[in-house]
Amino acid sequence: MGKDRPAASHRALGLPDDAFEQRQPLRGQITKREVRAVALYSLGLRPDSVVWDIGAGTGSVAVEAALIAHQGVVYAIERDEQGLPLLRHNVDRWGPGNIHIVAGEAPAALEDLRDPDSVFIGGSGGRLEDIVGTVARRLKPRGRVVVNLAVLERTQEVYHLLKKLGFITDIVMVTAARGKEMGDGTVRLESLNPVFMVSAWREG
Amino acid sequence: MGKDRPAASHRALGLPDDAFEQRQPLRGQITKREVRAVALYSLGLRPDSVVWDIGAGTGSVAVEAALIAHQGVVYAIERDEQGLPLLRHNVDRWGPGNIHIVAGEAPAALEDLRDPDSVFIGGSGGRLEDIVGTVARRLKPRGRVVVNLAVLERTQEVYHLLKKLGFITDIVMVTAARGKEMGDGTVRLESLNPVFMVSAWREG
Amino acid sequence: MGKDRPAASHRALGLPDDAFEQRQPLRGQITKREVRAVALYSLGLRPDSVVWDIGAGTGSVAVEAALIAHQGVVYAIERDEQGLPLLRHNVDRWGPGNIHIVAGEAPAALEDLRDPDSVFIGGSGGRLEDIVGTVARRLKPRGRVVVNLAVLERTQEVYHLLKKLGFITDIVMVTAARGKEMGDGTVRLESLNPVFMVSAWREG
Amino acid sequence: MGKDRPAASHRALGLPDDAFEQRQPLRGQITKREVRAVALYSLGLRPDSVVWDIGAGTGSVAVEAALIAHQGVVYAIERDEQGLPLLRHNVDRWGPGNIHIVAGEAPAALEDLRDPDSVFIGGSGGRLEDIVGTVARRLKPRGRVVVNLAVLERTQEVYHLLKKLGFITDIVMVTAARGKEMGDGTVRLESLNPVFMVSAWREG
Repeated sequence: MGKDRPAASHRALGLPDDAFEQRQPLRGQITKREVRAVALYSLGLRPDSVVWDIGAGTGSVAVEAALIAHQGVVYAIERDEQGLPLLRHNVDRWGPGNIHIVAGEAPAALEDLRDPDSVFIGGSGGRLEDIVGTVARRLKPRGRVVVNLAVLERTQEVYHLLKKLGFITDIVMVTAARGKEMGDGTVRLESLNPVFMVSAWREG
Repeated sequence: MGKDRPAASHRALGLPDDAFEQRQPLRGQITKREVRAVALYSLGLRPDSVVWDIGAGTGSVAVEAALIAHQGVVYAIERDEQGLPLLRHNVDRWGPGNIHIVAGEAPAALEDLRDPDSVFIGGSGGRLEDIVGTVARRLKPRGRVVVNLAVLERTQEVYHLLKKLGFITDIVMVTAARGKEMGDGTVRLESLNPVFMVSAWREG
Repeated sequence: MGKDRPAASHRALGLPDDAFEQRQPLRGQITKREVRAVALYSLGLRPDSVVWDIGAGTGSVAVEAALIAHQGVVYAIERDEQGLPLLRHNVDRWGPGNIHIVAGEAPAALEDLRDPDSVFIGGSGGRLEDIVGTVARRLKPRGRVVVNLAVLERTQEVYHLLKKLGFITDIVMVTAARGKEMGDGTVRLESLNPVFMVSAWREG
Repeated sequence: MGKDRPAASHRALGLPDDAFEQRQPLRGQITKREVRAVALYSLGLRPDSVVWDIGAGTGSVAVEAALIAHQGVVYAIERDEQGLPLLRHNVDRWGPGNIHIVAGEAPAALEDLRDPDSVFIGGSGGRLEDIVGTVARRLKPRGRVVVNLAVLERTQEVYHLLKKLGFITDIVMVTAARGKEMGDGTVRLESLNPVFMVSAWREG
């Protein structure tokens, strides 16, 4: 990433992981590029979508969703106060101007937001059931929900929870391995950890 | 996919694989959804991008790239005459109107097209070296190339070829497994085959 | 596999999947070679081990475990009467002579067997909790249990169940992709489905 | 691993990775447990096999192969003099007594060894073609060769080289992810890097 930053609205979709500054203790916790790609693609984004990014973290999903939903709005919800300056920094640097940072804990923090077309849940702070319940109530008819999960136990919980709430659900496990060039020019593969992604939408 | 088709320009990004009608003998050869997501994300698309989709096949990459590059243009190049009706059908159904189908074989068929910002190579018909050479010459300075490969041997060939042409290159192997719900409501995982993706861009 | 069968006791470890004749409807359900390898390696087999193979199926794990535990005994437990002739056929063909087929349903069928050093659970018929309870009670102090699971929900259940029973447990997800040579001599990769393997043993 | 070492000949098959002491700079380079399992299973070991382990490293494959080939002999060939004390230590600790350490570089170091039934090549020091040529000449008729490769370029080279030498060859890519229990008792998956394994044998 160059020092002379391009106007965010003209930048290309597809930022590398190191575009998002991270606090040291959380390093490695960012939604990885390949996973971010599949998550974004699964959100069913339209130019005018209203997007909730719950547990926005570094903002890596929010700033890209905002580029695709360029006439819409993205709410980046984050409860961790110590993480907010970083989120703000990344949104300023990479966001096209249609992102609202919401400091607070879901589901309470969701109350005043516009009803969403697309919801990404990348972090839950242990209140996943409440959050998913609120999302189910507020999601627009053609809307989509995508939940990223690293934890085996949560994956099936969320899948069955969304099903019980009347959604069509699917699961995909995304794994990727990145080529790393050795000193002699040959390439080895280094694996990313598997991530489970539960998507949900309503019939019709 | 409903019968009452929404105006393509208002549809959401992120079509399922079965949105793309396929000829029987090629069934299964479509760029799978999860791989398509990573490819699209790696193309560095801008709203006004000129995109070449070389070996467009069913058009699954072209129609999604055209949605992101909504003020740009996507050229869907395909040499297989028997595949063209299907490509046309999918472009009509899902494309937002800024896609040009180019019937012909790359690299010859690329001659009259506008210089690209983003190039996706999903099929090469065995002329990968020629095609990559032409792409390297014509690609705009900040442009990106993404090549999808199923074949082990080609992956390293293309990687080193692009490097020799002065590109920064990386490889990612994308593997995914989709949940399949059993009769008793439990979920098993069914793997997609690994795909190698070589990306290339120029310094600065 | 040649027609002139070598004496089973002199055959090499490492049979291919097609060595095990299968009934048509079950085709594809055999523990795949790569998974079988990891399972066998995780069982902690000794030359004189007593092994329980619960849900023996085609017998693919039993006949290999019996080769390593050549002075021990392997009980191949199978409740499906229609599957028994096939199991018998494979045990006769590939087993070194120290395999006992036990027709019946676990855990009842386990009652009269010698206490095991190693237990492989490849199928449970929905009575996994009962079976694991019996295994926990009967397993010798330095023994090991390996459970193969395709179902996401069961994996965490079994993991936590074994932990509650005082075992040290681990999970590994095994995925493999096999090279398939194309007509032109190049190689593509075809993925096997992911399998979860829970291993358990006692401290000390 | 306890301090009071069991007689190696009575230990169970299936050592964990941390059983093999490693020099710091090489840490992480050991053939991982899951890969070791598939490699061992692919070697076609018999009780009386003669095994060559070329590039034996920490000896993790040699000590396990020696347990299965308990009436045979395993040659652990290693050219790195600084690695020999560690190899010796591990062979003494875990080997059942039928392992010969051969200090020297293949293929020269192979000259005086008995013809092999099974050959594992885990490291080549850049002389893979010479080594494979010697192995092809010396391997007994029903023998098997297994080559582990991390490097993409080498994988296809070795595959086609063995084919040209008259072998039936196959490739498998082994990937695994290990469960890691978090503070709250839930389990995440951590991926091992993909390893390619080329196996070869002769018809009949």
